[in-house]
Amino acid sequence: MKPRVLALCGGIGGAKLALGLSHILPPSELAILVNTGDDFEHLGLSVSPDVDTVTYTLAGLNNTELGWGLASETWAFMDQLKKLGGEDWFNLGDRDLALHVERTRRLHAGESLTAITADLTPRLGVAPAIWPMSDDPVRTVLETDEGILAFQRYFVGRRAEPAVQSIAYEGSDTAQPNPLALEALNDPALEAVVICPSNPWLSVAPLLAMPALRAALAGTSAPVIAVSPIVGGRAIKGPTAKLMGELGLPVTAASVAQFYAGLIDGYVLDEADRDLADAIAGQGPAVDIVPTVMTDLASRQTLARDVLAFAGRLRNATA
Amino acid sequence: MKPRVLALCGGIGGAKLALGLSHILPPSELAILVNTGDDFEHLGLSVSPDVDTVTYTLAGLNNTELGWGLASETWAFMDQLKKLGGEDWFNLGDRDLALHVERTRRLHAGESLTAITADLTPRLGVAPAIWPMSDDPVRTVLETDEGILAFQRYFVGRRAEPAVQSIAYEGSDTAQPNPLALEALNDPALEAVVICPSNPWLSVAPLLAMPALRAALAGTSAPVIAVSPIVGGRAIKGPTAKLMGELGLPVTAASVAQFYAGLIDGYVLDEADRDLADAIAGQGPAVDIVPTVMTDLASRQTLARDVLAFAGRLRNATA
Repeated sequence: MKPRVLALCGGIGGAKLALGLSHILPPSELAILVNTGDDFEHLGLSVSPDVDTVTYTLAGLNNTELGWGLASETWAFMDQLKKLGGEDWFNLGDRDLALHVERTRRLHAGESLTAITADLTPRLGVAPAIWPMSDDPVRTVLETDEGILAFQRYFVGRRAEPAVQSIAYEGSDTAQPNPLALEALNDPALEAVVICPSNPWLSVAPLLAMPALRAALAGTSAPVIAVSPIVGGRAIKGPTAKLMGELGLPVTAASVAQFYAGLIDGYVLDEADRDLADAIAGQGPAVDIVPTVMTDLASRQTLARDVLAFAGRLRNATA
Repeated sequence: MKPRVLALCGGIGGAKLALGLSHILPPSELAILVNTGDDFEHLGLSVSPDVDTVTYTLAGLNNTELGWGLASETWAFMDQLKKLGGEDWFNLGDRDLALHVERTRRLHAGESLTAITADLTPRLGVAPAIWPMSDDPVRTVLETDEGILAFQRYFVGRRAEPAVQSIAYEGSDTAQPNPLALEALNDPALEAVVICPSNPWLSVAPLLAMPALRAALAGTSAPVIAVSPIVGGRAIKGPTAKLMGELGLPVTAASVAQFYAGLIDGYVLDEADRDLADAIAGQGPAVDIVPTVMTDLASRQTLARDVLAFAGRLRNATA
């Protein structure tokens, strides 16, 4: 497939905008390239939290109360696993488990994560393409005040409480980015690349850490637009603000723009951060100021429309 | 441990008597050696149906309605697996799944099935020792009018409908029987070996197909007693009668006694089969005639007491 729009995203925050895009674009025109740096083996099962969050969100099956997993989930498996003395720090719902078991079975049978995802997501009702960022393992690992922690151990096991000193994306040097994404980025017909408002350091950086993907992003003819996950000096969701503080960065939308400097052509800023627009524009990207806080499906679609309109203006400006 | 009584059994029928024995013996005096010829890998998980049926039955957690699995089970996993296009011919309940996932994880980590079973069963409330018959794979395979079928494909996938021509126990020649069982059988203090009323050809034969176990049974000083799974020319449960017909055997308790000829010292016959007693005794074993149909916990305990009393008489007779 040749998407018109390629979205890059991690889990929850980014999935909201991906959902908005999926509601305003024909399925064949949207592909979503998803972080796999959070993936891990748990209980012998291959778990891909961000791919699954995007899948469940686009299928309308996501658990909005928990913020992860499936709606109306049950927990008999976990309850019994605890009785058996199994590891219970990472919750897997009864229904969710089917995806992990089936994916693991197919991975062991030699299929790629990309092929498995392409087959399973339409069965759950997802129409656009969901592409894992790579079929090779990339693993986000955090150096913290409690020692080295694998991503899920930090994020779920320790609820993102340890102070982070540095982050590594193990395997990113040698991992081959999803060839479908490279092909899309090299396609002159691509109209926009959207970096969704996921955590830049935890959810987007693993993609950018793959040299070939970073090069393809730098070389694409389509405008690359990032949406700030920081609004009014706070993260909409998750540990982004806390993490930025630990990394010694000012907790502002400008710090995120700086992180993406050289890669992005446009930056979408919330109205609450209007005062940062000039400073960010001074770093290079064009700036668009719109409401970015997505509280419902309508606001997800509105932001998606705003981002694509911004991309249109940038294409026209360079044409 | 040095059990006073060693019970050999398969799944449902045998587990009833094992439960009866567990209610009348102190836990340290009973060990149950369980068929693993039905074990298989499904969805990447190691499933041990007979070990699990015995475990759940002795824990009082078994689903009496279904005849397998856990009581009050839920099926969200299977429902979602079907949506994902996964294999749905073998049902795994949400709660039951924890046992398979945890066991598989520990097997892959290098633990033996025996060690895992010894650790997990007490967590579910099982007091006596449950010993898998071997830590090596033995796989019951059936030659049928529909071709060669692995046990679960025949039994569950095809509901035991194909006509069976012959049965093989692959791996039994080289599999090492559970050393705890060999030790128990060689112990002069062992007081009884009870072959529970499981299907002789499907559930007990895999144990007997291991030469070292058969030799240990032949050599044990304890009386070996089999309880007939055939009463009045019918099987209490399952495909035993149908299978006997296909194998060209008269569907009688005498055919079962003939199958165990040379191995057993005593044979427990139901009152309904009183007319077969002389013919069976003529083949060698002492015969005890008692009610063998176990309809409730009381009848399970009564049969267990009858069998142990019979063993006591046989011990005194040879002493």
